[in-house]
Amino acid sequence: MSLDTDDASDASATMGGFAHVDVPTAEIDRIEAVQAPLVAAVRRLVDVAIRTRAEGAELDAAVAGIVAATDRLAADAADGPAGVRFNSEGRSWNWGNAAVGVRNAVAPPLAIRFVDDTHVEGTADLGTAYEGPPGLVHGGVSALLLDHLMGETASRHHTQTTFTGTLTMRYEAPLPLGPVVLHGELTHQEGRKVHVTASISAADGPVSVSATGVFVIPRWAVDLWEQA
Amino acid sequence: MSLDTDDASDASATMGGFAHVDVPTAEIDRIEAVQAPLVAAVRRLVDVAIRTRAEGAELDAAVAGIVAATDRLAADAADGPAGVRFNSEGRSWNWGNAAVGVRNAVAPPLAIRFVDDTHVEGTADLGTAYEGPPGLVHGGVSALLLDHLMGETASRHHTQTTFTGTLTMRYEAPLPLGPVVLHGELTHQEGRKVHVTASISAADGPVSVSATGVFVIPRWAVDLWEQA
Repeated sequence: MSLDTDDASDASATMGGFAHVDVPTAEIDRIEAVQAPLVAAVRRLVDVAIRTRAEGAELDAAVAGIVAATDRLAADAADGPAGVRFNSEGRSWNWGNAAVGVRNAVAPPLAIRFVDDTHVEGTADLGTAYEGPPGLVHGGVSALLLDHLMGETASRHHTQTTFTGTLTMRYEAPLPLGPVVLHGELTHQEGRKVHVTASISAADGPVSVSATGVFVIPRWAVDLWEQA
Repeated sequence: MSLDTDDASDASATMGGFAHVDVPTAEIDRIEAVQAPLVAAVRRLVDVAIRTRAEGAELDAAVAGIVAATDRLAADAADGPAGVRFNSEGRSWNWGNAAVGVRNAVAPPLAIRFVDDTHVEGTADLGTAYEGPPGLVHGGVSALLLDHLMGETASRHHTQTTFTGTLTMRYEAPLPLGPVVLHGELTHQEGRKVHVTASISAADGPVSVSATGVFVIPRWAVDLWEQA
């Protein structure tokens, strides 16, 4: 069975663009495993393309090889962005997500783990493609990862839907390229307003960027919940 | 002439890791032009890799082609991150930068233009690799681009060196994938504290995310300036 990722229009339910698709979890897991070598190869290529000194015939041959491989992959591909899908088993997938998308070489990707309903941990390995100041993680990449982790934290382990309201980042120390860890905590909630704090740091380092955020549960999500 | 991007250690001057390298602007421009088809090919591959349904022999052949091309490019490549370099003509380049790096397929890239010393405009085309909510730009990608543009704005057209202190983002409206514009303004400065506001929106749309930031000129940069 091959997943047609264009089938969102046939979905039996959508909520704010989040599309229900009847594909079993086992099939989603299989596709992710099959595609893993591709995204790994693309991530390595992104890194090497920044650093290569190849020119002339060597460079031309490499570009031709990449174009040929891309044409092959494009011959059977979904149109448009990957979106966010979920199935009846509660599995969701967002392959193109810029922070966590497992099939997106722009994403480090950030891996997220719920410690409990209000505490979330994240890890990522930030290589040369995530640079800002020399040898350091770009401050905006820290913001990207914090934004995503804090949104997950606000969801109380995916029991509520939230959107980012405001986000404040405090830059405290440089963050070297390499492995990073993030911690998020849902500190309190007032009705539809969810308050979250978070930080990012090097694996054994001090806090580099700390953040506070207010996330908002949209009115339509409350209405859906009350109808259920 | 081929630029050895490992030569930062031989640089005649470094400031906070920003390395002076004696390579003429014409040579930097030439290298960027030579490498442009490679990064364009990699950006297209990143996009297609998210969406492909190729499996089996087709997928294997594509991965093999990418690995072979990458090996070719890696045979002569700089070690480590690209850093930030500048030459005696005042040209600077940061090829691996996660927001603006012209050789980095993780970067959209953001293109930046100084309207005057205190106003900056940015443009980017955000495709499927920058998705967060379905069909929308990831809020953290907006944060990444705003962080970078605001840092540039704080530099008063590169006449002062600043680091991000705090950054507050207000999420006001969804931002569809596609072309975006950013505006930054240096509103006021108190000694070493530089205050900046900015926004990001769709090409003809309302403000999606507005931001305020405080950027700090490090003490060592003031000292260097006073010694000069």
